[in-house]
Amino acid sequence: MNYDARSIADMEPRKRARFINSLSGFKSANLIGTCDKNDNTNLSIVSSVFHLGAEPPLMGFIIRPNRVERHTLENILATECYTINAVALEFLTSAHQTSARYDRSESEFDKAHLSPYYVDGFTAPFVLESPLKLAMKLVEHQTLAVNQTELIIGEIHNVIVPERAVMPDGYIDIETLDIVSVSGLDSYHVTQRVGRLSYAKPDKKIHPLTKEGDATSWSAFE
Amino acid sequence: MNYDARSIADMEPRKRARFINSLSGFKSANLIGTCDKNDNTNLSIVSSVFHLGAEPPLMGFIIRPNRVERHTLENILATECYTINAVALEFLTSAHQTSARYDRSESEFDKAHLSPYYVDGFTAPFVLESPLKLAMKLVEHQTLAVNQTELIIGEIHNVIVPERAVMPDGYIDIETLDIVSVSGLDSYHVTQRVGRLSYAKPDKKIHPLTKEGDATSWSAFE
Repeated sequence: MNYDARSIADMEPRKRARFINSLSGFKSANLIGTCDKNDNTNLSIVSSVFHLGAEPPLMGFIIRPNRVERHTLENILATECYTINAVALEFLTSAHQTSARYDRSESEFDKAHLSPYYVDGFTAPFVLESPLKLAMKLVEHQTLAVNQTELIIGEIHNVIVPERAVMPDGYIDIETLDIVSVSGLDSYHVTQRVGRLSYAKPDKKIHPLTKEGDATSWSAFE
Repeated sequence: MNYDARSIADMEPRKRARFINSLSGFKSANLIGTCDKNDNTNLSIVSSVFHLGAEPPLMGFIIRPNRVERHTLENILATECYTINAVALEFLTSAHQTSARYDRSESEFDKAHLSPYYVDGFTAPFVLESPLKLAMKLVEHQTLAVNQTELIIGEIHNVIVPERAVMPDGYIDIETLDIVSVSGLDSYHVTQRVGRLSYAKPDKKIHPLTKEGDATSWSAFE
């Protein structure tokens, strides 16, 4: 089936939103933790976190205009810090609940039964339940002219993760932490590793790596 | 384990790259198809495609500086069009092979044994093997000041997808198309749906949806 621009534009708006949101493939599910100047906390689920660089360690994410994440944006601009907390299977429904439209005076931590967690010297709240927590400092913010979405870029200042998940070569086995993936607006998925693949070079055959990063033979890729 | 900014900065560079690239969670794996003014084709795997909006339908992705994707950037700027092709399990190793550093005169289609596919009136090549193909027109390009990465924003003009994967409510069941997810630099994963969750509202319990989008009871979420 080939959907052209016209047939997409003619879709009922909610159907189009589900359709277009499905096209970006499997996405990360993360909770953005913030607080305002009076330490009132806020939590918001996003599926747009992306890698921007390792040196310095940078990440970006998108906040949609006029959405519930508006409180998140205002808190980040006021405090210049936030946390990114990977969503795991264990608290998936709670994480999804944070997308509801709560008043500014209400904390999604309370409403979704998630636990704020603090680290000395960093004002934004982490999600205790998350197995992969990042402390972020705001580096750049811009409103994209094309549709008024907000691009937030931050530098990673701390990474809190169980040591057992960090492989000797630096790769983090996020699958072993039961971190979920999201597709579309509302579909959540667990994963099963097919394999790690060797660094690609011209005229050299790719070979599989073990989870730890060592070369080995593995029939699935022979 | 709490890795602070200093311990991250002190990591061996390749280890740090693997570590930081793991922090953005499960990512989409997509092949960007382009051609130059002389119809020489190019193909490059990226893991940074993200949703920007449904009306108009927009997507962004990141090109790293001085990387093999440089040919991709030059072609997009020259022709103002490109394709996004979701990577499926069946041609995963070929897709990974496109990350090798080929000369400009070499096409990754040939080198990775993937088939270019054309649609009348659109110059950029699709990947025939991909079950989810998008025709994109360049809308905005900017070099991010923070680390000289390139942000490419495009509008979705065509969506080529098997009709059986499009649910009545617009959601596309990308899992049924065997589309893979990537974590870190080199780990590929297949998925298993936990469930679709209802639109979250304050003071209303979330309930599961069927894959088709209808409400139902499902014990995993009771």
